[in-house]
Amino acid sequence: MPDFFDVVRSQRGIAHYKPDPLPEGAVERVIEAATRAPSGSNRQPWRFIVARDHETKRRLGELYVEGQRRSRGSAPPPRPADEPPHFSEAMADVPVVVMACVERWPITGGEAYRGASIYPAVQNLMLAAAAMGLGTRLTTIWQHCYDEVAELLGVPDGWEMMALIPMGYPQDPDHLGGSRRKPVAEITYYDRWGNAEA
Amino acid sequence: MPDFFDVVRSQRGIAHYKPDPLPEGAVERVIEAATRAPSGSNRQPWRFIVARDHETKRRLGELYVEGQRRSRGSAPPPRPADEPPHFSEAMADVPVVVMACVERWPITGGEAYRGASIYPAVQNLMLAAAAMGLGTRLTTIWQHCYDEVAELLGVPDGWEMMALIPMGYPQDPDHLGGSRRKPVAEITYYDRWGNAEA
Repeated sequence: MPDFFDVVRSQRGIAHYKPDPLPEGAVERVIEAATRAPSGSNRQPWRFIVARDHETKRRLGELYVEGQRRSRGSAPPPRPADEPPHFSEAMADVPVVVMACVERWPITGGEAYRGASIYPAVQNLMLAAAAMGLGTRLTTIWQHCYDEVAELLGVPDGWEMMALIPMGYPQDPDHLGGSRRKPVAEITYYDRWGNAEA
Repeated sequence: MPDFFDVVRSQRGIAHYKPDPLPEGAVERVIEAATRAPSGSNRQPWRFIVARDHETKRRLGELYVEGQRRSRGSAPPPRPADEPPHFSEAMADVPVVVMACVERWPITGGEAYRGASIYPAVQNLMLAAAAMGLGTRLTTIWQHCYDEVAELLGVPDGWEMMALIPMGYPQDPDHLGGSRRKPVAEITYYDRWGNAEA
């Protein structure tokens, strides 16, 4: 029974994954956790595409790296010789890669708020993975190859891809140890912007 | 020590709150949980405004209801006589109302992906509240009064308000019992959109 606050503190974006398969039922368990998240008017406007096919994952990795290149306008710097390949270069070997999609229903307000109906579910999915000792990472850089990714996964026009999440055991389990964060006092105001006095 | 999966299953959008004060340190604890969430390049582009002042909360409730009216283009239907006031009509009595803000840094990609750097933190905040027996709700309808809310809370141009979250003990503790969700098999595809076979 993993303690809630331990799980929250352990989450960290994992860069290197073992190829080991996930435990039986793990994928369904993390998606079930995702479905418990809130969404606008409880619409539950989500679909999750679970990529396990080697060639599909290989191509996703290729489009991820190309997305980075398009985003920077240049190739990424070469990786130091002593560093293992980043998951994007070895995505075919990550056991599972999940694409979270949200419905493009007509909303009356700002487009940015559509994320309120999918990213809480994505966060539940990643936390549930952490609760099982699995690593994940929330990625969006592949968006710079949006059309190619949509074609690869067959995502129709009425749906939008919002997060690609690799999932597997971390190469270095210490990486589940949490990471540095800004202290609460630095990011909290009381009653009005800028008022840091509790 | 609340079990992670129990907390995830217990989350539910709460409509009615007790005016009872929160436990000592609860606000800081839920915001600390928020800071453990991922954000793009670990930028941690968040600020949380904790409204406790009676007049500020009263005005937030007013703007929430006005946001509903503007969104619908008409007044909401009258509430049944036997139903307690919705939290928006009684927001001054909700012990704490939190506004989550995200920085408007220049991103190369789509605006919708900015939510990936704030809604996971919002979800952590709401889950942490649930872990302490507190109710919350993710709301965005006040966005239809964006300028008035920004003026009230003093939010500067470089930041965007993304979620307003009431927080307090639920009037009916059963409401922390979870809600109905689409089954995993209905929302999961394998390798390609539409392929429901695991």
